[in-house]
Amino acid sequence: MSDTEKEPLLLVNPAADLTPEETEEPDIQNEDGDTPVSPKPDKAQTLPRTNRQLSFSFQERSKTLPNRQTSDEKTRILDQSFGGTTCYGTSAPDGNYRGIYNVENLGTIQSGFKKRIGKRCRNPKHRHMSLSTHHGPDDPRSYLSSNFESLNYDTVENDLTLQNETKREYKRFSSTSFNRWLVCFLIGVFTACTAVIVDIGIERLSEVKLDLVRKYMLKCLNKDVCSVLIPWLVWAGLNIAFCVVASILIAFVEPVAAGSGIPEIKCYLNGVKIPRVVRIKTLLCKVTGIIAAVSGGLACGKEGPMIHSGAIVAAGVSQGRSTTFACDCKVFKEFRCDHVKRDFIACGAAAGVAAAFGAPIGGVLFALEEGASFWNQSLTWRIFFSSLVSSFFLNTILSTYKGSPGDLSNPGLANFGLFEISNYEWYELIIFILMGVFGGLIGAAFNYINIQLSLFRQRHMKYRILKVLEVIVVAFTTTAVGFCAMYFVEDCTYTQVKDTELYNLQMQCDSGQYNSLATLFLQSPESTVKDLLHSPIDKFSWKSLLTFSIIYYFMSVWTYGLAVASGLFMPSLLTGAAYGRLVGVLLHYISSITISEPGIYALIGAASFLGGVTRMTISLTVIIMEATRNITFGLPIMMTLVTARFVGNYFNEGLYDEHINLKQVPILPWDPPVKSFRLTAGNIKSTPVKCFKAIESVETVVRMLKRTTHNGFPVVTQVPTDPDAKHFGQFMGLITREQLILLLIKKVYFNESTMNVFGDISVDDFRDMYPRYPDIEDVDIPHEHMKMKIDLRQFINLSPYTCNESVSFARLFNLFRSMGLRHLVIVNENNKAVGIVTRKDLAKFRKWRKQGSSGVQQLGIVSEDADLDDEAECCNGHSS
Amino acid sequence: MSDTEKEPLLLVNPAADLTPEETEEPDIQNEDGDTPVSPKPDKAQTLPRTNRQLSFSFQERSKTLPNRQTSDEKTRILDQSFGGTTCYGTSAPDGNYRGIYNVENLGTIQSGFKKRIGKRCRNPKHRHMSLSTHHGPDDPRSYLSSNFESLNYDTVENDLTLQNETKREYKRFSSTSFNRWLVCFLIGVFTACTAVIVDIGIERLSEVKLDLVRKYMLKCLNKDVCSVLIPWLVWAGLNIAFCVVASILIAFVEPVAAGSGIPEIKCYLNGVKIPRVVRIKTLLCKVTGIIAAVSGGLACGKEGPMIHSGAIVAAGVSQGRSTTFACDCKVFKEFRCDHVKRDFIACGAAAGVAAAFGAPIGGVLFALEEGASFWNQSLTWRIFFSSLVSSFFLNTILSTYKGSPGDLSNPGLANFGLFEISNYEWYELIIFILMGVFGGLIGAAFNYINIQLSLFRQRHMKYRILKVLEVIVVAFTTTAVGFCAMYFVEDCTYTQVKDTELYNLQMQCDSGQYNSLATLFLQSPESTVKDLLHSPIDKFSWKSLLTFSIIYYFMSVWTYGLAVASGLFMPSLLTGAAYGRLVGVLLHYISSITISEPGIYALIGAASFLGGVTRMTISLTVIIMEATRNITFGLPIMMTLVTARFVGNYFNEGLYDEHINLKQVPILPWDPPVKSFRLTAGNIKSTPVKCFKAIESVETVVRMLKRTTHNGFPVVTQVPTDPDAKHFGQFMGLITREQLILLLIKKVYFNESTMNVFGDISVDDFRDMYPRYPDIEDVDIPHEHMKMKIDLRQFINLSPYTCNESVSFARLFNLFRSMGLRHLVIVNENNKAVGIVTRKDLAKFRKWRKQGSSGVQQLGIVSEDADLDDEAECCNGHSS
Repeated sequence: MSDTEKEPLLLVNPAADLTPEETEEPDIQNEDGDTPVSPKPDKAQTLPRTNRQLSFSFQERSKTLPNRQTSDEKTRILDQSFGGTTCYGTSAPDGNYRGIYNVENLGTIQSGFKKRIGKRCRNPKHRHMSLSTHHGPDDPRSYLSSNFESLNYDTVENDLTLQNETKREYKRFSSTSFNRWLVCFLIGVFTACTAVIVDIGIERLSEVKLDLVRKYMLKCLNKDVCSVLIPWLVWAGLNIAFCVVASILIAFVEPVAAGSGIPEIKCYLNGVKIPRVVRIKTLLCKVTGIIAAVSGGLACGKEGPMIHSGAIVAAGVSQGRSTTFACDCKVFKEFRCDHVKRDFIACGAAAGVAAAFGAPIGGVLFALEEGASFWNQSLTWRIFFSSLVSSFFLNTILSTYKGSPGDLSNPGLANFGLFEISNYEWYELIIFILMGVFGGLIGAAFNYINIQLSLFRQRHMKYRILKVLEVIVVAFTTTAVGFCAMYFVEDCTYTQVKDTELYNLQMQCDSGQYNSLATLFLQSPESTVKDLLHSPIDKFSWKSLLTFSIIYYFMSVWTYGLAVASGLFMPSLLTGAAYGRLVGVLLHYISSITISEPGIYALIGAASFLGGVTRMTISLTVIIMEATRNITFGLPIMMTLVTARFVGNYFNEGLYDEHINLKQVPILPWDPPVKSFRLTAGNIKSTPVKCFKAIESVETVVRMLKRTTHNGFPVVTQVPTDPDAKHFGQFMGLITREQLILLLIKKVYFNESTMNVFGDISVDDFRDMYPRYPDIEDVDIPHEHMKMKIDLRQFINLSPYTCNESVSFARLFNLFRSMGLRHLVIVNENNKAVGIVTRKDLAKFRKWRKQGSSGVQQLGIVSEDADLDDEAECCNGHSS
Repeated sequence: MSDTEKEPLLLVNPAADLTPEETEEPDIQNEDGDTPVSPKPDKAQTLPRTNRQLSFSFQERSKTLPNRQTSDEKTRILDQSFGGTTCYGTSAPDGNYRGIYNVENLGTIQSGFKKRIGKRCRNPKHRHMSLSTHHGPDDPRSYLSSNFESLNYDTVENDLTLQNETKREYKRFSSTSFNRWLVCFLIGVFTACTAVIVDIGIERLSEVKLDLVRKYMLKCLNKDVCSVLIPWLVWAGLNIAFCVVASILIAFVEPVAAGSGIPEIKCYLNGVKIPRVVRIKTLLCKVTGIIAAVSGGLACGKEGPMIHSGAIVAAGVSQGRSTTFACDCKVFKEFRCDHVKRDFIACGAAAGVAAAFGAPIGGVLFALEEGASFWNQSLTWRIFFSSLVSSFFLNTILSTYKGSPGDLSNPGLANFGLFEISNYEWYELIIFILMGVFGGLIGAAFNYINIQLSLFRQRHMKYRILKVLEVIVVAFTTTAVGFCAMYFVEDCTYTQVKDTELYNLQMQCDSGQYNSLATLFLQSPESTVKDLLHSPIDKFSWKSLLTFSIIYYFMSVWTYGLAVASGLFMPSLLTGAAYGRLVGVLLHYISSITISEPGIYALIGAASFLGGVTRMTISLTVIIMEATRNITFGLPIMMTLVTARFVGNYFNEGLYDEHINLKQVPILPWDPPVKSFRLTAGNIKSTPVKCFKAIESVETVVRMLKRTTHNGFPVVTQVPTDPDAKHFGQFMGLITREQLILLLIKKVYFNESTMNVFGDISVDDFRDMYPRYPDIEDVDIPHEHMKMKIDLRQFINLSPYTCNESVSFARLFNLFRSMGLRHLVIVNENNKAVGIVTRKDLAKFRKWRKQGSSGVQQLGIVSEDADLDDEAECCNGHSS
């Protein structure tokens, strides 16, 4: 069931040739006004996404405001100054189109700004009209999916919960507080264990692979006849085998475990429930998948998925049960609600960062940068504690595993080695900033290419087997391209210590020498980063570095978004470090001034590229500083990252955000779009509202639940019978679908004549059921109970936040975002419900920014389950 | 004028011997019900603070809830389980006592839980009854001052502002955005300049002092007759002279510049306006004062005041004008409102941290740890940017000043030198944690002693001259104690390089040796920290370290809270580093296992003590890491800090928080007190509410403004005439005192017969006046205008957040805190105003925690301007 099914505001272009008869065409009402996500099949089209985008542009000349309305009229004006060609429409929450309202001549309309002009544009030529401003109508980024539910981060306060709280003694509070810290501790420990499993798994698998290839290599050398082709084929075959395993896990078992998982966690912290994202099954696929993918030599890292893994661990530990294994440890029941779970998931994500990079502070800052709207000091400390524990345990376990217990030299999976104490010259800061600019540019290009690839995948690779095939192609190409590069780029270095290592390939080099490019490609990514950061200047020639960075750049673009679990950090670091080192090496040869070690340039290059791709700044600075155990370069890294962010943002958003948009997630950004105050709650609210009376019959409740997919229902004193009513009774409180279903399951209703209450319910019943409540269709209610009554008053949220209709969009947005709301009831001056606003009503108004211009666009809403009715699809916004 | 003048809820102990006639005694109503802060002088008493504390204890057995109320009755039950002896009272917003309500037998009262028992206890023996739970009735920490106004961090949205926004074109938005970054840049630059002035000022003054003393010293040595007494007297005299200057600046010029200023900035970010805290005059006194105080050899540092200075710089730059100099640069007008100013002040505080410690990330985290409730991603980046700029400019300027431009080796004022790469053994972590425990203990003791001292000062040192005298005593003692210690502790070290330096005193040592304790005392604090962190093990003997740490501990306790600008960081660092080094040295001598350098122990010791005093964790970890340029010890430092915090919190709060409580600031903590849901908005609201009609006569407005000190007035459809009315008309919006005064000044009223509007007003008029609006007494309105009418509808905040009476305290608190509200109107089910809640209504319910137990206490409200009426002063809570 989806959170909201309302149609968006529609925008029509009256400037287009509209014949008068079209203008007067009456609305076609869907008779069954309550099942919008499954419209009549005869209206379904092959194109699931309709063209309903509204683009405001503020570069247009601004007209003066029409006559100011006084406030008591409770109307608010939309200043329609976009060339005089726009009109607003609104539609009903049941998904049916209700009409389009002309706001052109608002200034002359005094009471109620909406004048129905009853226009529905069907002309297909309008379809592509407005889309020059931003994404086109065929672009998934122009829509939000209605399939994502919201999480309710607001607390429910009703008689039942208050009664439960009142019963709690002081020691229960203490034990909850203790449990909270205990859970944070366990999150840290288990996240560290997961990280150890990933690390050791990759190490062992890679060893097996290396041994096998070495065996064939030695055979070849002994025979002296075969080329390196046979060992290479063995190598490629093994890689492909690993990658197939990795992709099958994603394509056939758990698609949500694909990629790094950072976008998904970001959405979760924002308040959107991505289905199955924090299940144990997802964790298992993620962990196995990432071991296979990294061992399979794909251009991906194990660090990003650690963040997702930490979040899943946190969800599992804090809830004390697993849906996948259908077991319930009956512990930590008090943590079974959305907002507490979210806090723990933030802890888990931070613990994941701490484990991945040995960066506990970076972890805290990551959680801050990704989910700051719910921040709180005590939460900060718990997040910090989880990060610390995670980093410490990983350190202890890995150090013990590597034979030096107590040495504590493995704080994270990605250990980039210690920098010798070194410094930089002030004029190098300029070079660093220029590298930041370049990093921003190539980062933006990276994002662009990756998004185009992802769009292609979304459109044309719908079959699972295709996804697996693509992974095979990528695995083969990665191996082949690397091999060709080694073969054709001659860069021979005298062997030093590790001449027996496989990756010191002699290739076409003289005896005693090895191919340094082969080293870059064949050793583990972490060792390569270490080499790039710390080796002497002559270890890698500029040819090797250039080849490596270009190949890795394109392979990373191709890999991220494949149907495998794959992190973005490590390939970006590698690409960036190689290009940075290239800059350093070149500067050394051509410049006459003192230049720092190329390793410093590699570090800055890595930072610039990572910044250009992810657009993270503070957390990334700290993560890099903690991972390199060096603080001297804090300032240059920061400057580079900030520059890269600014430059990159000129072109597009960070890759994680772009992927969130691709997934059509109704995420709420940090700030409301500029100038969104033109919209008010009255404009964006859904109306009519489906309400319940305080005492309602079971039959009414069941029918309403079956006929709608709403999740929140206002409870009012009296439900109006008039279908054209402007308001829907005095607002008393809000009740959710979950609560109603549980009330029905527990039979908390009474016989009106005997006053005999059937069942009883407690707060624990809600916790037992959380987070997956049965569907109303699965609730079996005896026919004779249908006439019973439910007294909702004990269960409604007595004090939900409400707003009046004149609240501006920006203000509404801030309330929604700060308080983590799911539903907000709009009331009139007499506290009568007149509408309801949900996350999607806010999320669909989104800022677009491209090449320095900016505006507000309105996204459409699509459902994956069913194609949309065609009624509203041709109404486009006016392009600027 | 104060934000709220309501009396707190009163608690009476009916178990006390109350005679029946007392029980029936009628309320004494203050006839002039609107001027509570200046009660009738005949009722004033010498004791300004009345005894009105309510303490809940949850260790008491919890009784079962009385019969559950259904929600539609709109009553909520307070579970009164505190030994059956409590009763609630409530009083009117005009400060007059309205009665005490017995809530004992709530279970039997069905509609409206309050039953007036009309009891006002006057019996003086009740006065000290409830105060065994926490602070006593004479303790300032049992009260909040009504003299602090709140800041309004919520945006005002009325027709005027919306009209103004609508007029803005897109490029205006861009320019605002650009200006925002520009201001952040300027904040960074000017903060860096301030830091440079402080640094160079201290260096130069100290040099002058040293030269003079050296001259006398050499004289003595030549004569070979005088002891070190004369140079010492010169030294002491100079120190005292400097300190007198420092203290006169505080005692006579600007008292708010005393101390580190961190508590004040914390309050500002929290939403409390401490008068004059961000004025240029305060900055001048702070900067001059800290230069004098540090040069005068007091046990204080220049780092803390830098944070305050940065905040003042931010306020000045962002507002583009100065009240002190009465100049207005007419720039950045769009930033002239509370919440934008607050954001810049957060930037300034972070820039201050960055300048003080060379810790840009630490600065961001400091701002986060102190003011996280308003966090936002784009704000994070601006804060980060300011910090970066500040650190970079300080670095550039100082490096240039010190003769190596471009070297960039002076990122902050406190430069603790680079650690050689070193590591620690795992078992040392246990020692570090034990040091954390000890640091927490001595930190808590430090806070306890300092608070007792501050209480003594508050009570007995009311005259300014006394404050100056105390500073003289402290300056003399510091010099004398240090000198005695040098004289009597024999700790001679062979001179190394700096043997010509003054602070390498020979004292009683052999020729070629010097007294190492003298070095510790006489060189600059920063050099001492460097010495403690980096010198070889034999440089300081355990005797020196022990003596130094004990002396510095007590001198720091004594110094913080004196009438001088003084930072707490550096003395704490010194004390902690000395004790830590002591631990390291002792361990080296007695243990057989491998032990890290004593410098490592000094670092951990410094962290543990700082953590024990300030209770900061994350930001302090990062600050220490950035200041020492070392990341290897991140984990041990964090563990130590977290331990110190836990241990210290068992006994008392952090020193900054304790000082905030001492100042009686109505700060809102991070979370509502545990179990505060027992209170509802209905319980804590102030009623009756002073309301205005939408169109109100000038006379009514003026009279209301003169008769009350309220700052926010609900505007309603109809003001009830019945004085006993339960509600006060349909709520339309909120208008503030400032808005009303400006409307009167600008003569925005009309003649009802001619409809002739006199004046006009724009958003800029509000900005011009911000933040200091004239008093109503200073507004001159011609008598003939008194009959005119003001139409308030265009100016009221149309969409303020409202709550109904059944909202729990915790929920109300979260809304208030997250949204940065100043007033919240409580409405009934028909949207009729029934009460108003302000910051003090929430802040006075505070958690107390002591030695593991915890509860809610209710603080009293006092005014500094006048003593309170005696009516409510004897009603005490029941102690548990």
